[in-house]
Amino acid sequence: MRELELIRRIQERLSVQGDRVLRASGDDAAVVRASGVAVTSIDVVVEDVHFELATHSPGDVGHKALAAALSDLAAMGADAGEAYIALGLPEGFGEDSALELVDAMGALGNRCGVTVAGGDLSSAPALFVAVTVVGWAAKEGQLVGRDGAHAGALLGVTGELGGSGAGLLLLRGLEAELPDNVRDALLERHRRPEPRLVAGRALAGAGVSAMIDVSDGIATDAAHLAGRGGVAIEVRLADLPLASGVEAVASAADRDPLELAATAGDDYELLFTAPPDATERVEEEAAAAGAAVAWLGAVSAGRGLRLVGPDGAAVDLSGYEHV
Amino acid sequence: MRELELIRRIQERLSVQGDRVLRASGDDAAVVRASGVAVTSIDVVVEDVHFELATHSPGDVGHKALAAALSDLAAMGADAGEAYIALGLPEGFGEDSALELVDAMGALGNRCGVTVAGGDLSSAPALFVAVTVVGWAAKEGQLVGRDGAHAGALLGVTGELGGSGAGLLLLRGLEAELPDNVRDALLERHRRPEPRLVAGRALAGAGVSAMIDVSDGIATDAAHLAGRGGVAIEVRLADLPLASGVEAVASAADRDPLELAATAGDDYELLFTAPPDATERVEEEAAAAGAAVAWLGAVSAGRGLRLVGPDGAAVDLSGYEHV
Repeated sequence: MRELELIRRIQERLSVQGDRVLRASGDDAAVVRASGVAVTSIDVVVEDVHFELATHSPGDVGHKALAAALSDLAAMGADAGEAYIALGLPEGFGEDSALELVDAMGALGNRCGVTVAGGDLSSAPALFVAVTVVGWAAKEGQLVGRDGAHAGALLGVTGELGGSGAGLLLLRGLEAELPDNVRDALLERHRRPEPRLVAGRALAGAGVSAMIDVSDGIATDAAHLAGRGGVAIEVRLADLPLASGVEAVASAADRDPLELAATAGDDYELLFTAPPDATERVEEEAAAAGAAVAWLGAVSAGRGLRLVGPDGAAVDLSGYEHV
Repeated sequence: MRELELIRRIQERLSVQGDRVLRASGDDAAVVRASGVAVTSIDVVVEDVHFELATHSPGDVGHKALAAALSDLAAMGADAGEAYIALGLPEGFGEDSALELVDAMGALGNRCGVTVAGGDLSSAPALFVAVTVVGWAAKEGQLVGRDGAHAGALLGVTGELGGSGAGLLLLRGLEAELPDNVRDALLERHRRPEPRLVAGRALAGAGVSAMIDVSDGIATDAAHLAGRGGVAIEVRLADLPLASGVEAVASAADRDPLELAATAGDDYELLFTAPPDATERVEEEAAAAGAAVAWLGAVSAGRGLRLVGPDGAAVDLSGYEHV
């Protein structure tokens, strides 16, 4: 009965966004007006695997779990619609913590026009959050997959890289000399990433040919684009758009800032390829969606990923420690 | 890298059903051709909360997690389409066990025309399976909610009750004298329930007014129909269609078989209300879908659930132990 009461309290706090959702929680299933194609992704995060409650509040965990899932929809260029959440709650986590976690998901959903339309709860030995997100597009052709990179295209990325990894190092206790506002921005970047939904749709509309969100670090994510496209991609590390403070944090950690930014992940920026004649439109549409674009590489015939350092020599990051 | 390899092996084993799925695993998200309304439910099961690995094989766990989720779509009268699965895998569970679990989901999906179109994996301190299922209907009006019970309607249920609860008692070591085939059927009933998808669509088409799947036992599930419909429902316990062997198991456990069948749950039959003039059509359509129908109660003005024993007296099961 405590579980039913918690479900009731959660349902009270969540609001329906837009007019797509016909039935949300309270029945055997949610009912949503469909259109065109549905774009769906499921993500799960587990305590002490993906996050630690020592450094993340319940709200951080909820926000980030939903943000990471929505980032997958952004990377398809889809219009985010609904989220369905399954929570595993450990003994002692407490109802207030559960509500804080759900409230953060609700707040992010409200900002993104996303309805949390269903969920399930269980007790569990550790906190986990599984999130299924559903987005929509009028036609399949409006979406962008990972597999569209062609020789001759340029590689671009939105926003800034390395901020989340630097924030995680700070959360783990690294001492670095930073202005307070820069430090706060790095911590926020790690704990409360924003899915690039508006930019994703703008980039899809501007003609990008392949797209992926930067969840594992561009060294890994660019390799996915190369692999799925059956092409070679070269990334110029010197052109990575580093977030403010990344150099200072990397220096304090005795690490190369470019390698940190290329491997740390969790930035949830969008990495994409675009034909050369589309670059101007891509920059304009992304700017209108609030995202700067940096061009950091090129696609050619061949296979695999090649990382090039500032001195022009190839860089091997395959043994590099993931933060 | 082990995780990526396991994901690749899982993807190889799953097959796309029908022509709805345009992109399954391998991209940021699955892409599915939509139509009418989407019907979506998420369910999670956790080791030692919902099942024990001492009595359930990995295949049982996978099958049952998907079956329980699909049962929610059956209870809406929806056409099941896709499933998305998030797995938490404890240390030592092993890759073979993970593949057995997924294979059982794939096999059930194949039988039901359901594509496992996406997933995520994590290590975790205990095995858990979160399943999101998506079904489809051409129009909202073709679906049946929990809220449509009206005074004057009759209460019906498909199939047989109590089998899953009796099977669980046997799994936990209860000694009962039973023919082998009856014992095996009870165990199978608990470990490998079949979602009533075809019957759910048939009942929706035959004009049932409210529907829910029997997951918590009809004493609880009928109360949901009464609560959501704002009506009173009377259930005649003597008319419960008991599965073969339930009386013998209840007797061995020193329990009342009717109370066991009304409270044990996990039967995944469909409980529904229908106007009196629809009963013949309901029976015919359900029979054509392979499901017998038993009529076991009536809806009237008022509020709440009333259980009536074989002697005509009210029965209070609120303190009854859930198996």
